Amino acid sequence: MNVLFLGAAGFIGKNLAIEFAENKKNYVTLVDKELHYFDDVDFESYPNIRIITSKLDVDTRFDELVSNQQIVFHLISTTVPTTSNQHISLELTSNISLTTNLLDSCVRCNVHKVVFLSSGGTVYGKESSCPLQEDMPTNPINAYGVQKLTIEKLLYLYYYLHGLDYRIVRLANPYGPYQRPNGLLGAVTTFTYRALRNEKIEVYGDGAVIRDFIYIKDAVKGIMKIVDGDSQFKIFNLGSGHGKSIRQVLETIEEVLDIPLDVMYTPTRKVDVPINFLDISRFEKEHGRLETIGLKKGIIETVSFMKEKYNLNFFDRV
Amino acid sequence: MNVLFLGAAGFIGKNLAIEFAENKKNYVTLVDKELHYFDDVDFESYPNIRIITSKLDVDTRFDELVSNQQIVFHLISTTVPTTSNQHISLELTSNISLTTNLLDSCVRCNVHKVVFLSSGGTVYGKESSCPLQEDMPTNPINAYGVQKLTIEKLLYLYYYLHGLDYRIVRLANPYGPYQRPNGLLGAVTTFTYRALRNEKIEVYGDGAVIRDFIYIKDAVKGIMKIVDGDSQFKIFNLGSGHGKSIRQVLETIEEVLDIPLDVMYTPTRKVDVPINFLDISRFEKEHGRLETIGLKKGIIETVSFMKEKYNLNFFDRV
Repeated sequence: MNVLFLGAAGFIGKNLAIEFAENKKNYVTLVDKELHYFDDVDFESYPNIRIITSKLDVDTRFDELVSNQQIVFHLISTTVPTTSNQHISLELTSNISLTTNLLDSCVRCNVHKVVFLSSGGTVYGKESSCPLQEDMPTNPINAYGVQKLTIEKLLYLYYYLHGLDYRIVRLANPYGPYQRPNGLLGAVTTFTYRALRNEKIEVYGDGAVIRDFIYIKDAVKGIMKIVDGDSQFKIFNLGSGHGKSIRQVLETIEEVLDIPLDVMYTPTRKVDVPINFLDISRFEKEHGRLETIGLKKGIIETVSFMKEKYNLNFFDRV
Repeated sequence: MNVLFLGAAGFIGKNLAIEFAENKKNYVTLVDKELHYFDDVDFESYPNIRIITSKLDVDTRFDELVSNQQIVFHLISTTVPTTSNQHISLELTSNISLTTNLLDSCVRCNVHKVVFLSSGGTVYGKESSCPLQEDMPTNPINAYGVQKLTIEKLLYLYYYLHGLDYRIVRLANPYGPYQRPNGLLGAVTTFTYRALRNEKIEVYGDGAVIRDFIYIKDAVKGIMKIVDGDSQFKIFNLGSGHGKSIRQVLETIEEVLDIPLDVMYTPTRKVDVPINFLDISRFEKEHGRLETIGLKKGIIETVSFMKEKYNLNFFDRV
């Protein structure tokens, strides 16, 4: 099967690409802006992976990219939730126009299925109560969530008008290997990395904020099932199904590493919903139970990955 | 009160403007692309109405327009439902970018309330069952509906981020005075006009399509209540609350005019949902019973308006 990943150099793209490439029958094409974005993964060891660079914007010739592809992963996002409210118009129009161009190309080139990574953490907003179900009201409190939601509606529209099949994954908060350890996203990864390097950990608010953390390899397993599945539903929440507070995350890291953390609490941000975790019963009903390894084991795995990847010799530190 | 209507030269804008101007305490500003768009209403007889021309696009300086306004009606739409699928990207980006610019200006200039005319006929799509309630799933089958829905989400976002108050009216199918009698929209108005002129009436499909028709003056009464109201809800359906088929409309016109109509049925369009009528119980619970005159009386009123306005002497015809 020919599988295309657009916006492949992100954390989710890299992990999904590895999983797809493990199956030698798949021919995997990765597309992102710069070649060096892919440097941290040994993609050269996979003969069935090729990498293409493209700006992935409204001027991109998507026909050339999606031609002969059966499955297209839309992982492109021009911004992240926390900064998306600074340029609301641009956030929306840039993502929407490139997506419509992409979908037009997918229709023209007979792509079988478009898989869109939406955002379980932002599309619902803060008015619905947790655990969040797919058919609950969606009132995002940042432009990132509005953008994701609008693209969800466009996928439905293209399916209705042109029969272009699709799946939407409303993913919770994934963490683990290949997530940028010093980025704006990913509390578990960032905190673990900083703890390993004996650095101060900055927390917005008092640590009571609750999120649904899922180890990336569990998320990838779930996404594979959604992509392959033939459910009547096209939108799926995907998370651990449980909420953990930022404090619980910190305590778990402390427990795993067996050291006290240096935590600094700073004022709450308005873009953060206080509590967010997903009801995954639709997923489990349609695709079977989602086995997840739990936060502690996930952090152990992440620590082990980081030590090797970033040459962190934690025990030297003390 | 200073009230601004953006996109004022449309059917709904004209009727709302007249209603607001009847209250001498209101100072009403109408904005649209061309001055002659307003020619069919005698706005000069209202000393408290002024008309401004503006392109009303992404380059518009909205600060200059919304400054000192308490209520701003957003009635701008660059397209209509039936043609919106031809330019999906443009449909969305043009409406979204001008709306974010407008909302930014409203925040800067301390506008009290933005009133947005959304679309009860398109935001729900065809999966939810009628009568449609405000909290039912929204999956539009045309880009016009996606655009309206995205703007709804933006209004919530601006309210959340900046406290900019708003009301959203998901209006059904209004008809009556000042609706363009030969436009793409408005079955009741168009059919009545054509019947009065003894012209052939073209119907998409077999006439079984059901819509929620509301006489424009009833819609205006309802909108006034929503604008003035202090409900916990910001989104309201507004319609008659009943569905009527296109066939019933034709029969009612036939009955009112007492002549046989010349009707031609043409293939169904994919952009039309087969059945659409609104549950208006939220409105009635919050704002009291919506008295509507019913289709027959509404058509009688429309006929009477048209005869005078367009110098149609129906009785000459036979």
